Amino acid sequence: MPSTDEPAARLPDDVGLLTPVTAGAPVAVATGDAAVLAAMLQAEAALVRARADLGLAPGTAADAVTAAARELDVRTIAARAGSGGNPVLPLVADLTAAVAARDPDAAARVHEGATSQDILDTALMLVAAHALDLTLADLDRTAGALARLAAAHRDTVMAGRTLTQHAVPTTFGLKAAGWRSLVREAHRRLAATRAALPAQLGGAAGTLASFHAHAEAAGAAPDPGLGLRLTAAYARRTGLAEPVLPWHTLRTPVADLAGSLAFTAGALGKIATDVLGLSRTETGELTEADGGASSAMPHKSNPVRAVLIAATARQLPALAAVLFGSLMAEDERPAGAWHAEWQPLREALRLTGAAARHAAELTGTLCVHPHRMRENLARTGGLIGAERLAIALTPLIGRRAARSALSRAARRIAAEGCTLEEALRAELPAVELPDLHELTDPAGYLGAAQALTDRALGERP
Amino acid sequence: MPSTDEPAARLPDDVGLLTPVTAGAPVAVATGDAAVLAAMLQAEAALVRARADLGLAPGTAADAVTAAARELDVRTIAARAGSGGNPVLPLVADLTAAVAARDPDAAARVHEGATSQDILDTALMLVAAHALDLTLADLDRTAGALARLAAAHRDTVMAGRTLTQHAVPTTFGLKAAGWRSLVREAHRRLAATRAALPAQLGGAAGTLASFHAHAEAAGAAPDPGLGLRLTAAYARRTGLAEPVLPWHTLRTPVADLAGSLAFTAGALGKIATDVLGLSRTETGELTEADGGASSAMPHKSNPVRAVLIAATARQLPALAAVLFGSLMAEDERPAGAWHAEWQPLREALRLTGAAARHAAELTGTLCVHPHRMRENLARTGGLIGAERLAIALTPLIGRRAARSALSRAARRIAAEGCTLEEALRAELPAVELPDLHELTDPAGYLGAAQALTDRALGERP
Amino acid sequence: MPSTDEPAARLPDDVGLLTPVTAGAPVAVATGDAAVLAAMLQAEAALVRARADLGLAPGTAADAVTAAARELDVRTIAARAGSGGNPVLPLVADLTAAVAARDPDAAARVHEGATSQDILDTALMLVAAHALDLTLADLDRTAGALARLAAAHRDTVMAGRTLTQHAVPTTFGLKAAGWRSLVREAHRRLAATRAALPAQLGGAAGTLASFHAHAEAAGAAPDPGLGLRLTAAYARRTGLAEPVLPWHTLRTPVADLAGSLAFTAGALGKIATDVLGLSRTETGELTEADGGASSAMPHKSNPVRAVLIAATARQLPALAAVLFGSLMAEDERPAGAWHAEWQPLREALRLTGAAARHAAELTGTLCVHPHRMRENLARTGGLIGAERLAIALTPLIGRRAARSALSRAARRIAAEGCTLEEALRAELPAVELPDLHELTDPAGYLGAAQALTDRALGERP
Amino acid sequence: MPSTDEPAARLPDDVGLLTPVTAGAPVAVATGDAAVLAAMLQAEAALVRARADLGLAPGTAADAVTAAARELDVRTIAARAGSGGNPVLPLVADLTAAVAARDPDAAARVHEGATSQDILDTALMLVAAHALDLTLADLDRTAGALARLAAAHRDTVMAGRTLTQHAVPTTFGLKAAGWRSLVREAHRRLAATRAALPAQLGGAAGTLASFHAHAEAAGAAPDPGLGLRLTAAYARRTGLAEPVLPWHTLRTPVADLAGSLAFTAGALGKIATDVLGLSRTETGELTEADGGASSAMPHKSNPVRAVLIAATARQLPALAAVLFGSLMAEDERPAGAWHAEWQPLREALRLTGAAARHAAELTGTLCVHPHRMRENLARTGGLIGAERLAIALTPLIGRRAARSALSRAARRIAAEGCTLEEALRAELPAVELPDLHELTDPAGYLGAAQALTDRALGERP
Repeated sequence: MPSTDEPAARLPDDVGLLTPVTAGAPVAVATGDAAVLAAMLQAEAALVRARADLGLAPGTAADAVTAAARELDVRTIAARAGSGGNPVLPLVADLTAAVAARDPDAAARVHEGATSQDILDTALMLVAAHALDLTLADLDRTAGALARLAAAHRDTVMAGRTLTQHAVPTTFGLKAAGWRSLVREAHRRLAATRAALPAQLGGAAGTLASFHAHAEAAGAAPDPGLGLRLTAAYARRTGLAEPVLPWHTLRTPVADLAGSLAFTAGALGKIATDVLGLSRTETGELTEADGGASSAMPHKSNPVRAVLIAATARQLPALAAVLFGSLMAEDERPAGAWHAEWQPLREALRLTGAAARHAAELTGTLCVHPHRMRENLARTGGLIGAERLAIALTPLIGRRAARSALSRAARRIAAEGCTLEEALRAELPAVELPDLHELTDPAGYLGAAQALTDRALGERP
Repeated sequence: MPSTDEPAARLPDDVGLLTPVTAGAPVAVATGDAAVLAAMLQAEAALVRARADLGLAPGTAADAVTAAARELDVRTIAARAGSGGNPVLPLVADLTAAVAARDPDAAARVHEGATSQDILDTALMLVAAHALDLTLADLDRTAGALARLAAAHRDTVMAGRTLTQHAVPTTFGLKAAGWRSLVREAHRRLAATRAALPAQLGGAAGTLASFHAHAEAAGAAPDPGLGLRLTAAYARRTGLAEPVLPWHTLRTPVADLAGSLAFTAGALGKIATDVLGLSRTETGELTEADGGASSAMPHKSNPVRAVLIAATARQLPALAAVLFGSLMAEDERPAGAWHAEWQPLREALRLTGAAARHAAELTGTLCVHPHRMRENLARTGGLIGAERLAIALTPLIGRRAARSALSRAARRIAAEGCTLEEALRAELPAVELPDLHELTDPAGYLGAAQALTDRALGERP
Repeated sequence: MPSTDEPAARLPDDVGLLTPVTAGAPVAVATGDAAVLAAMLQAEAALVRARADLGLAPGTAADAVTAAARELDVRTIAARAGSGGNPVLPLVADLTAAVAARDPDAAARVHEGATSQDILDTALMLVAAHALDLTLADLDRTAGALARLAAAHRDTVMAGRTLTQHAVPTTFGLKAAGWRSLVREAHRRLAATRAALPAQLGGAAGTLASFHAHAEAAGAAPDPGLGLRLTAAYARRTGLAEPVLPWHTLRTPVADLAGSLAFTAGALGKIATDVLGLSRTETGELTEADGGASSAMPHKSNPVRAVLIAATARQLPALAAVLFGSLMAEDERPAGAWHAEWQPLREALRLTGAAARHAAELTGTLCVHPHRMRENLARTGGLIGAERLAIALTPLIGRRAARSALSRAARRIAAEGCTLEEALRAELPAVELPDLHELTDPAGYLGAAQALTDRALGERP
Repeated sequence: MPSTDEPAARLPDDVGLLTPVTAGAPVAVATGDAAVLAAMLQAEAALVRARADLGLAPGTAADAVTAAARELDVRTIAARAGSGGNPVLPLVADLTAAVAARDPDAAARVHEGATSQDILDTALMLVAAHALDLTLADLDRTAGALARLAAAHRDTVMAGRTLTQHAVPTTFGLKAAGWRSLVREAHRRLAATRAALPAQLGGAAGTLASFHAHAEAAGAAPDPGLGLRLTAAYARRTGLAEPVLPWHTLRTPVADLAGSLAFTAGALGKIATDVLGLSRTETGELTEADGGASSAMPHKSNPVRAVLIAATARQLPALAAVLFGSLMAEDERPAGAWHAEWQPLREALRLTGAAARHAAELTGTLCVHPHRMRENLARTGGLIGAERLAIALTPLIGRRAARSALSRAARRIAAEGCTLEEALRAELPAVELPDLHELTDPAGYLGAAQALTDRALGERP
């Protein structure tokens, strides 16, 4: 264990060792502490610039802020984030000092009228915007790869499985088309959330009163519309949406991120879950192109991307639950609910974004093994066609008797290892059986699988 | 404890004793087991009717199903739901028998080609649709009440509070307008989810193959479009949306319900949290019109509606987490993920709907006490105007000195009980102070509060 | 949809239709609303009896309460639970009236000095005690069945699987012994929680002052120890543990239930997950004795018990999260945190108890198929022995070369379908290979599997 | 935003900017990536040393591993953690190379026989042990501070509050004694979990077969007890408990951490919640000694420690839910459930530990304001004594009439601002009222508050 005696050492240095899904992912850096600090500084600069846009501050002050921002150090700010409960307080102190060293007059413009939450909320929305842009691109790649898989395997027959058991045949094309529809829905939800991410500006308690007072202290005439115009200018400068109201305790944007990120992770998790199930040694219908090695077993090739995506999908519902819980934010700034959002929101953005990147790679290089699918279809000796057989036998012996005979035949096959034909003849000695070969051919019992695939792939993007 | 020896007694009979938020709420019944059973029967009937619409079954069969459905008993079905893992299996058995007693030929049409999930998913969507309709109406009432409160109290000044402490003044109108914006966002999300709730039809593994086979067994020519047309007819008969694909393991509708219900409960929870905080005996700015009694203390009037709404909001994130987690549904029907959805989904619909009803009552009859708001504003001896004073003093003595003097004055007031004027004179003996009376008048430091309220109320609904 | 216009109809009637895991389970009834009502009445009676034990009330009053309790109706009480926020208020009203009809003097003794939370918390602990007793018995049955399976299959070789892939051999005995150790740990945690479940008594704000005042109003001398003695007598009468302090907002018992139930459900969920994976059609190493039928497919035999257990295990972490969250209960009775506990606690008790019952049946009748285990071990052509081979080859060619050769051989086998021997000869033409038959015999590479099994089974219960 | 083009830059560098609760906390470093890496290396070294203890490896090999471990770089390892899905694979590669540079023969001993999970699980238990040691010390400090507060304020009267409203009087001593009992229960649970934290050793699939094979390849005779003895030696070398079975998929230790950490955070959260409520400007009964500053308002002193503790307590239930969910770990190593544990476990340890440190400071320096408690007691004009009055009036006019008169009096006081005496005289003109002054004296209606406090403080630690 490293010594923790030195105050300077009392900061973690997490580089992703315990979140391997993020290794090498641009979204990991885009959501890192350095990126958050950069976004806070971007928000501070945008505020000075917005005031300049309205003639309330000199443009040179904004330039000084932008220049000074480069000098700030994330560690010394993080180390002091505890005393006031958020990192904006030490940031404002350091930024003010750095600006003062360049342009003493500009120092008074730093953070003028703002509250900590204006800066941190805006920064987290900027970080979210960047993270979602990366994620949306990877979802696009994933949807494209899945469209290609669905088209290529439109007619590749495989076992449909329900409650772990073979049910009736389906196609890998339909499965891939289903995966793609989830990815597209995820894209739609995330893109809508992304477009609505708002800047935050409200001042101490969401009335924008300080901005009015500063303007009046500087000689401006009272102007009831000033706060709204400043908010519009600020939003424009940040590139975020203009909020109707300050949202210090109206947390719609955070809840929307929670919902759309949880949906996205779950959608990718569905794909991963299927890949894992179909990769099992006994099933072997899918394999990852570049499976992971084992530290102990030289022969193994693990479906690592699917594992990492599944691990992500297991965490998102809980992270979203914290964020949904923070909707209950009392007063004009809550005593804990807001603070509880920061880390779960960052984790949700980071993990989901990283999972999307793996999903794009996974689906883009997935190996599909139609011969294993055929072998597996054959394993039940034709029982994969039992539903079809029951329908065919019903006109001959009635629905109930048909189902009952097939149930007994299934048990007989399991017990005696006989063929379906042998089993049925034993169960129904008096019945002239129809052509079992044709009736148990999986390719002949696909219903609307291909039509559904075609329709799903034809949907507008 | 009641005896649990009798098999017939081994069913719970939950009537809402532990969920008082639901007492008397129509949504409680609309999501009850009887309603779920009715919806399952509605789905079974719609399927026969859809087949009749396509000429695949006689209309009389559908009539027989509808008639027989009235005879089914929820208890005997629930008691047998364990052996197959879902309630559709015993329902089909009982329904088939009841139909056979009326119309032997129709019995073969019951559930023909369907899988259990087709029926249960469709039923839960019907239940959700009904519950959301009730909820949306109550959200509308709530938003209306809040619009009236916001307009009536556009200029009612109260303390803005951050991290439990008085910050700067705000208005109750702005607070109510913020609550309303949350309620309207909740309405928007729930309404969008409601409109998209789809029927479910896929057959055993989502290929609709059984419907094709039944049609062909009855003499129809092979028709690759049959399944899609049947799905469309079935959706039309249920009144639900037509799905692009069977969604047995593509759980977008359930995830969307999770997200929009969690958001709605949280939005209502924000209102409740504020009401609870402002109802505290020492604060007393709000009271519920018909507070709840205490079993021990005759004088008490508890903010019961807010309590019940808050209790709901605390549960929804967890319920939503289960539902988001079920997105990871393997294969064509998952071994647990689907089954884990049913009860959390019902609870989420029921609790949120009941909370919306209480919210409508709460906001429609809320007692606002402006005189208590004024008293509370006065409690800090003018320090509620400290930010404004700091801005006013800055041109005289500089920003840092102004803030520092006010911090010291605040501590002096707390320690000595002196007035703000006395404290400031002691801190700044050489400074000619501006008009403190005017500068600490809360009504004079509202910034854009009223403009924001007007804009928020003017939004298109 | 049933009509919801009639006030009398506005109560749900949930009989477990959406929780099939509970069908027929004694714990479902033991946690039902009727049982909760009975437990509340038991608490009210215990309070009168405790006071009689201390000479503060006549024993006849307690008899009257017990007799009157039989007349109360759960529906009419549930229907009025909303107005005061909990079901105790209408219960006290009805109970008082029923007692007054029998013994007017006794009516004044009903609920005397108590607060609603005293009664409801005590009742929920009584319900929890009953539910846990049922659950513990089923865990015992499960552990016994698993001990038998582990002993019977101590030497049954099967594939160990990691990250979905065959790794090295293991035994089914070791797997069953591991399952059993989890079940025993669950039993230990639940039993400890059960033993500590306390009665609740505190009066209006946890000081027991009302009990003191009633005694003094009846002429008793002031006695600072009265409240503590009354609490002891009350606990004795309920059969629950005596609390050190009233725990209205010190929710240790509820949090302990949350933790031990979540652990138990997860432990059972691990077993279910393994059963599901090993039941897959392609793997087929385990089957449930009485698998569930399908509504569509006559041949299917689904692992229904495992499915229902897994569905339970997916819900418990979320229910526990609500209960852990309610630890943050403000003041002497919280405005929502307490109310949010009731339904999740009941659900957690009910679902976990029902899952334990299924686990006892599942493990008691599980069908193990050693021949399928052997077949599956053979599927990789000997690669299940790759780790052992690498160790054996290392002295010949070095560790790195040995691992590399086996990795290449594995790919060659997959690509060409050759045997391991052929592949290794191709990769290592110059090396004299050791006896591959022996080295790839799974039964020869079990390490400490049997020793671990023996030790685990030999642990004290 | 920093550029993310450079591969080397694609790692986050999180230093706690978004978790201010951890700033300066030793537990933050003790759970950081550098500490995790150090613990993994400690595990690798312990394994070599354990084998040396059994005469299976030279002691010089262990020395070489320990020496080489100092050279490893966390960033280059984290950057490669994605390809195999965990950080052990690159660690073993780097460690082997570093050892080989010093002692080529020792290189073959690195990680010999182990699987990645052996190392990472052991490392996380080592990290947990260190984090819990820090946390337990802070809980001790907290309990001590609370004992002092409870003793000092044994007789300090304050309002008991239920559902936000004044109920009956209580004491601050009883409240502090209750807080302490929660902290002691948390200590008990965490200490028990700490003592049982086990080392992990199982090899590829939990049979320890590789260790047997390596020993035999080196010439040792077959020995069925070798694996168990090696596990014991390894556990001894790590200082962790010896496991009965390898627990790769028997996750009791992780679930116990989840439960005890969630309990601890909730216990501290209860204290924080009370501090926040009693710190509100209108209530003002408690203040933090060193409140946090505001970036906008010079007069504010925020209860920052309580805010940060509350923010922690809001996150723990969700983190615990992920960990409980991972109990459902399939096979011998799960495909996602294990990987999903790492980051939530670290966060849970880190946040809870940091919150405990703040709790020790908060409770050790908390300012209690008895005069504000007295002022607040007086605010309801005597209604805080309503319950006692009702009991006193009951012999005069009956229970129902007494309660009714007091309810009406409470409304009259609220409406007319009259005194309780005036109100009661108006309501009960014909009744000779008892001594209201005495009956409404809060200090005279404390019941067993002091006796409970004494008993709770006298409990064995």
